[in-house]
Amino acid sequence: MKHDFPRKVSIVEVGPRDGLQNEAVILSTEDKIDLVNQLANAGLKRIETGSFVSPRWVPQMADSADVFAGIVRHPGVVYSALTPNLQGLEAAINAKADEVAVFASASESFSRKNINCSISESLARFKPVLAEAKNVGIKVRGYVSCVLGCPYEGYVDPVSVASVTAELISMGCYEVSLGDTTGVGTPLATGNLIEKVTGVVPVNMLAAHFHDTYGQALTNLVIALQHGITTIDSSVAGLGGCPYANGAEGNVATEDVVYMLAGMGIETGVNLEAVIAAGKTISQKLERQPSSRVSREWVSHAV
Amino acid sequence: MKHDFPRKVSIVEVGPRDGLQNEAVILSTEDKIDLVNQLANAGLKRIETGSFVSPRWVPQMADSADVFAGIVRHPGVVYSALTPNLQGLEAAINAKADEVAVFASASESFSRKNINCSISESLARFKPVLAEAKNVGIKVRGYVSCVLGCPYEGYVDPVSVASVTAELISMGCYEVSLGDTTGVGTPLATGNLIEKVTGVVPVNMLAAHFHDTYGQALTNLVIALQHGITTIDSSVAGLGGCPYANGAEGNVATEDVVYMLAGMGIETGVNLEAVIAAGKTISQKLERQPSSRVSREWVSHAV
Repeated sequence: MKHDFPRKVSIVEVGPRDGLQNEAVILSTEDKIDLVNQLANAGLKRIETGSFVSPRWVPQMADSADVFAGIVRHPGVVYSALTPNLQGLEAAINAKADEVAVFASASESFSRKNINCSISESLARFKPVLAEAKNVGIKVRGYVSCVLGCPYEGYVDPVSVASVTAELISMGCYEVSLGDTTGVGTPLATGNLIEKVTGVVPVNMLAAHFHDTYGQALTNLVIALQHGITTIDSSVAGLGGCPYANGAEGNVATEDVVYMLAGMGIETGVNLEAVIAAGKTISQKLERQPSSRVSREWVSHAV
Repeated sequence: MKHDFPRKVSIVEVGPRDGLQNEAVILSTEDKIDLVNQLANAGLKRIETGSFVSPRWVPQMADSADVFAGIVRHPGVVYSALTPNLQGLEAAINAKADEVAVFASASESFSRKNINCSISESLARFKPVLAEAKNVGIKVRGYVSCVLGCPYEGYVDPVSVASVTAELISMGCYEVSLGDTTGVGTPLATGNLIEKVTGVVPVNMLAAHFHDTYGQALTNLVIALQHGITTIDSSVAGLGGCPYANGAEGNVATEDVVYMLAGMGIETGVNLEAVIAAGKTISQKLERQPSSRVSREWVSHAV
């Protein structure tokens, strides 16, 4: 179903976690804290700040507790953490994360290669996490990866995506973020996917998490907006991607999303110049260029 | 008005003219001929092949007659040329161009800086070109630049765009290509613009010519498709842009457009792998990278 464009969109900034986790360079704790603070100062209201997983698997996130301890908390900003299991949840609660997230996949092969278990095993592992989170009154977000294609299987059936999404919601997730991990999605497939998923889950419980690998992310986001989704994940400077997915570098850049939405008169609360500055700072530290075209071309008279 | 997505889209490849004209490196005639031949072999049916303008102004196009003489003409392929005046038209006719084009602007300042005359003066200059073209039975395409913003004036009123477009059609152009010269357009503005223009000109006489300066081109193209436009200009490897427009580098890459349309099941007749190869070859000769994300990320299993 086609909606008019919304008046407001909520942006979930995933750069400090999903982004940095997938960069080769490991930053100092201080640099990570600076990044999160800059993003909050730029007006971002939901910031994925860290991950409580084994440092053996994800050395980039080994200091997440210190990052949570070091940031300046802005009132009204939600600082979240990825927590694959109960141990992670406890660490996140100790770190005073405002919200946590669990990570599933719509593709069996990707689930096995990425988190070493089948889709249903992963959902079973999340059950105690969701129960305990409910107990302590902390909200849980769900991620579903490979919603528009899988690096190992290719085609992914929207029915599988709808089914995993519905299961995460029924287990207690308040929101599920649909991830086009490999960036292969195009507008028609995106529309079909969202129609299928919204057949079983209300659209206001969904977020769009698109990669710009093939330059299609903004296009797919516009289709998502037209289908009523108003929560968008993005990563400052386009940080990160996924090392397990061939060619899957490239979260859509927050700068590009904010520029597009601003141009459409859609409110995000984010200051474009401030987020461009944050992206340039972190990119310098990582010795890379922001992937954002807006950032690269930015001249102040352009908007 | 929203349409369903079309089943077919016609791509106008502007790389050999609009693209190469705006690259710093001047290629040999042979390299240009090779490019046009490769593009025709890739299945492109409309190729802007050259320009008959003063070589003092555009040295990159000084050998357009030789390019037209050297290419292998494919049956069914339209090889076109830009012709700002009668002299240019005669040269184009001698070169056996299948179609010609004239270039106007929706912004007074841009018109003066780019073609040294006001909008109405430019239209007056085109009148004899259109009359003579009609005489000899050659079709004329019109371009309108700055349809979503001007590097000098900023905001451009869609009413001006509609008025220049209608005038070009009434003078005898069979099609007008709407150019977002600075790439500042976003989806809502694009939709509003097309609604305004289609109020005075039938949508099947319009083409969308979008720059990817801020990464918005594909998004705006999807909006154009939803509004019934089925002719899209693009440039292999994202060649060119406009040297007069601050930050206005970046025609949308043909590879990215073809990838998106193929993913949507929309027929273009273009072979993606062949156009990627053409883009890589020409980019090597220009000692640059293709701007196309699809080209950079291309792995054959991805589609």
